Amino acid sequence: MHIDHAGIATDDAAGLAALYGDLFGLEIAHEEEFDGMNVVFLDCGNCYLELLEPLEGGTIARYLEDGGAGIHHLALATDDIDAALETAREHDVALVDEEPRPGAWGHSVAFLHPKDTGGILIEFVEH
Amino acid sequence: MHIDHAGIATDDAAGLAALYGDLFGLEIAHEEEFDGMNVVFLDCGNCYLELLEPLEGGTIARYLEDGGAGIHHLALATDDIDAALETAREHDVALVDEEPRPGAWGHSVAFLHPKDTGGILIEFVEH
Repeated sequence: MHIDHAGIATDDAAGLAALYGDLFGLEIAHEEEFDGMNVVFLDCGNCYLELLEPLEGGTIARYLEDGGAGIHHLALATDDIDAALETAREHDVALVDEEPRPGAWGHSVAFLHPKDTGGILIEFVEH
Repeated sequence: MHIDHAGIATDDAAGLAALYGDLFGLEIAHEEEFDGMNVVFLDCGNCYLELLEPLEGGTIARYLEDGGAGIHHLALATDDIDAALETAREHDVALVDEEPRPGAWGHSVAFLHPKDTGGILIEFVEH
């Protein structure tokens, strides 16, 4: 598996996209409103930064309230998300999503519980 | 710039490397003791995960004490770290490292202050 994106919680996705454009030369690959968030994908060439700005309450809104902006999760790309979840199950990893669900940008996604992945929130993504 | 690695703070780099090998098929690309830490790079094909396990006090040890394991920073690869730092200075970004310094794996690195990068700790890396 390779890294698909790092998910960043922010209260200003447009501002952060502009700043990272200026500082790092990153350009917007895709943006949409999804699941009560303004979601902006920045193209890093080899993967993406996914900027997540909540427009209402929810997981990312609570994350920001608890500790402010930060790197919320890492997403690994897989060609077979069902097989990836099955491997996780075989290793007794608790799943946030027992089945893949629709994610941003039309992708299929599923999160693993960080208690069983070394404290890191990991997402599987199938394009 | 592209993503070079995500830096992960952990209290057990070897255990996490083994787990991510089992779950995600990631293999160890490099490991060393560096700056009071056990540092393990996992090969994701397009970039790396840098596992950082403190062996004594320091930044990562304090990070773990404060909030436990987590995604500590994102590193962007650049062919010209001096130019990257100059661009950051021109945008009034506070620098943790005014000049590049030796990092793990023999790379040249410099960190930007998260207060000026949207709350995200960003590292420049030149191989």
